[in-house]
Amino acid sequence: MSEAPPELAALRARMAELNDLGQIHSLMFWDQNTMMPPRGAAARADHSSTLELISHGRLTDPEVGRLLDTLAPWAAGEDPDSEAVRLLAVVRRDHEKAVRVPAALAAEMSHADALGQQAWQEARAASDFSHFRDALARHVELRHRYVECFEPAAHPYDILLDDFEPGLTTEELRPLFETLRDELVDLVAAAATNDAQARNHGAFSGPFEADDQRRAVMVVLEAVGFDPDGWRLDPAPHPFAQSLGPQDVRITTRYDLHDFGVAHFSALHEFGHGLYEAGIAPELARSPLGAPVSLGVHESQSRLWENLIGRSRPFCGWVLPILREQLGPALGTIDAEGLYRAVNSVQRSPIRVDADETTYNLHIILRFELELALIEGTLAVDDLPAAWNEGMHRLLGVEVPDDALGVLQDVHWGAGLFGYFPTYTLGNLIAAQLWTRLQADLPEIEAQIGRGELAPLRDWLGEHIHRHGRKFPPRELLHRVTGDTLRPEPFLAYLRAKLADVAP
Amino acid sequence: MSEAPPELAALRARMAELNDLGQIHSLMFWDQNTMMPPRGAAARADHSSTLELISHGRLTDPEVGRLLDTLAPWAAGEDPDSEAVRLLAVVRRDHEKAVRVPAALAAEMSHADALGQQAWQEARAASDFSHFRDALARHVELRHRYVECFEPAAHPYDILLDDFEPGLTTEELRPLFETLRDELVDLVAAAATNDAQARNHGAFSGPFEADDQRRAVMVVLEAVGFDPDGWRLDPAPHPFAQSLGPQDVRITTRYDLHDFGVAHFSALHEFGHGLYEAGIAPELARSPLGAPVSLGVHESQSRLWENLIGRSRPFCGWVLPILREQLGPALGTIDAEGLYRAVNSVQRSPIRVDADETTYNLHIILRFELELALIEGTLAVDDLPAAWNEGMHRLLGVEVPDDALGVLQDVHWGAGLFGYFPTYTLGNLIAAQLWTRLQADLPEIEAQIGRGELAPLRDWLGEHIHRHGRKFPPRELLHRVTGDTLRPEPFLAYLRAKLADVAP
Repeated sequence: MSEAPPELAALRARMAELNDLGQIHSLMFWDQNTMMPPRGAAARADHSSTLELISHGRLTDPEVGRLLDTLAPWAAGEDPDSEAVRLLAVVRRDHEKAVRVPAALAAEMSHADALGQQAWQEARAASDFSHFRDALARHVELRHRYVECFEPAAHPYDILLDDFEPGLTTEELRPLFETLRDELVDLVAAAATNDAQARNHGAFSGPFEADDQRRAVMVVLEAVGFDPDGWRLDPAPHPFAQSLGPQDVRITTRYDLHDFGVAHFSALHEFGHGLYEAGIAPELARSPLGAPVSLGVHESQSRLWENLIGRSRPFCGWVLPILREQLGPALGTIDAEGLYRAVNSVQRSPIRVDADETTYNLHIILRFELELALIEGTLAVDDLPAAWNEGMHRLLGVEVPDDALGVLQDVHWGAGLFGYFPTYTLGNLIAAQLWTRLQADLPEIEAQIGRGELAPLRDWLGEHIHRHGRKFPPRELLHRVTGDTLRPEPFLAYLRAKLADVAP
Repeated sequence: MSEAPPELAALRARMAELNDLGQIHSLMFWDQNTMMPPRGAAARADHSSTLELISHGRLTDPEVGRLLDTLAPWAAGEDPDSEAVRLLAVVRRDHEKAVRVPAALAAEMSHADALGQQAWQEARAASDFSHFRDALARHVELRHRYVECFEPAAHPYDILLDDFEPGLTTEELRPLFETLRDELVDLVAAAATNDAQARNHGAFSGPFEADDQRRAVMVVLEAVGFDPDGWRLDPAPHPFAQSLGPQDVRITTRYDLHDFGVAHFSALHEFGHGLYEAGIAPELARSPLGAPVSLGVHESQSRLWENLIGRSRPFCGWVLPILREQLGPALGTIDAEGLYRAVNSVQRSPIRVDADETTYNLHIILRFELELALIEGTLAVDDLPAAWNEGMHRLLGVEVPDDALGVLQDVHWGAGLFGYFPTYTLGNLIAAQLWTRLQADLPEIEAQIGRGELAPLRDWLGEHIHRHGRKFPPRELLHRVTGDTLRPEPFLAYLRAKLADVAP
């Protein structure tokens, strides 16, 4: 390994600054969704757009291209798996994608995203899509202008997907989702109930005061690895996780008076996200490698904690006495086996974030189909609510009661995020693939979970996934860990086994 | 008035961006002091330093100087009181001050300020100055380097003062504070008690739960003008106010189980600050004129609400039934006249933020003397705690129990703020001068306050002070409103009258 040219340090310094701006943006997002007074949105949109313009300017600075070009011959002689070579690959990708987007368009998108979130919040509060219609049309228009900045892809949606799941294409995703859809529609038909009251078999129907729920969630989180000196938990209408630094991890959850499961599982979910960000190797801090590699891999971590761990028999057995102590008699007389069955019940429901493991992916597949149609132009913005309601009926047999519980339920489209939803289902697939390997490496894992010993699990995830950050692209990371490519079978096998296990 | 050259719009656009960066910095400060997990400090220091570097680069961009020079001949032919001419004056001041400070020093200061705040928090928690000593020494060293960037002033402290109170000099301030000090020491000797238990004559000694206090504070704040859709109230160890936009005003307060007065008066105080920022004319938003003109004027607004209004007889009469309804029997059987006397009692106490109107300024004068000595080099950092304790004895007859209740009580020195403290006492002086004029303009004001009719008062402040932002420098603003120059007599007269009124 030859000594690195001075340009490498210059590039690192520039990228450290970009990392800081990105984390400042994360703070602004977190604040906007947890703390900001509603009337603050207009000024925040200006702030966001200014910061985006500056970040974009720094990333697209021709000097970055010059540094990359100067470093290329040196990198060609280095170990292709070295941190420096991987860093250059990531910076080249980010730089080349960014230079294609004019600064003015980037600023317009950022501004529209902030205003769109606000419009979405107001529309959702009024349960009226018409308040959101213009913002959404603007988002779609801006995405078309964005796609046009790039070399034509096999499908325009590929350009959007690549921002969230580098390298993934519509051509790969469509058949994979079709297979999943057909299998899942059958599984749901066999296992699901329409009785909304029967959610989790009523195990968590309370009522539970938000303060009590928060206390219970915190006890569980601290037992699984939430560090109060470096993490926060706050309520948010649409739970999310953000890290503003390696030791400033912010997760959110939502409290439903009549369903403690919402807070419990969304907190475990966001904890999984937070643990990923907190577990990136400290030597990658302020480097472009010091970030999660893709949303699919990110989501695999949250799904793993929410579902493969959180809805497992040993976890239910371990957590029940804790919940009983925190929540008291409102929890009823359920036993661990009953809890396990309850939290694995399959129900047709209108809301994605409250959905069980089986129906969840049909919610995603609907969004994927609709996004694709909006981008292809085969679906008009004004027809979206009707298409939504039709899809919910077709895929899940659900009649949507209103826009708030339908097309307006998620923040993503409000924030201009297209190509993002599929990564949730990718996360489920990847989580199942990782879990297979993890079980082989840690044969005692079920017993350990049953005793609340989660350090071996955290360590395995840290060692195999978290610490690498963006060093290996998603496909390569998955292959390094599992020896496998992305495929739906492990997830479907897991699901079939689970449903057979809990069947009455 | 001739048509403005295109350079004016170019300058405005650059300044709007700077305004955004400043408000983002305010968000980071607010978050660090209310929300951030303790371990987030290191990353936050990086963020802060990066943002500071970018802001500094934008403000010192030679293009700003070129635009100012190009616009100067045009401005010379315009109305000197026009918004554009005043804008150019303010930008020239900011630009010329900033170009003198190398970007690297500005970044070093910003970084040290963030780390210093963290060191201060830890030292205060441990009540041990030694944990803060190095950070403070670093601050003093950095201030010396900062002062050296400018043309030598009559006193090096002038350079620091000017950042907070444009145009004010040590030569003016020293005799003014000496006069005040001598008068106040006499007033305190005549009126004060040493009995810490007798604070507010025990009217607010509770105990009151923080949740109850918060509820009571919110009812009072909403009645005086706090808009829940555009404001926030949060707890903070050292209360402050920040606006992140014209309709995103964040104030903080502190809850003391055994003294509701802490929360009540600090909330009124920060409300006064918030109202100033919220009241700046909307057409000045994102302009350098769209900010408070000086800390002294800012503090005049907070002091006015905390003291001249909040501790007045009619306000006590109006607020007591509200507090009784919110706080219940823990408030005791005090009547309005008793409350008025109680909240105007004079007590020797170690803590500035809890001090009454009379002793308060002696706390400030001590800090002014110590800052001056640290900057002059006549006081070593290691000797600061002893000098603090000696000064508290000399000026207030107070024996300081420990560092947390002594030299470590304020965040300012932790954040590298030198030249800031005097503005608190300036605020008291200016508030008394404004109040004299306000009473002449609004002869019914006392009766209106007694009925909780605060709109005329808010309107007067908005019209005479708030809406102007930075359009008129502090001296000019004071003269425009009161026809007077800065002087201590109105404040001393107000204080003597109050103390005579409440004397037993």
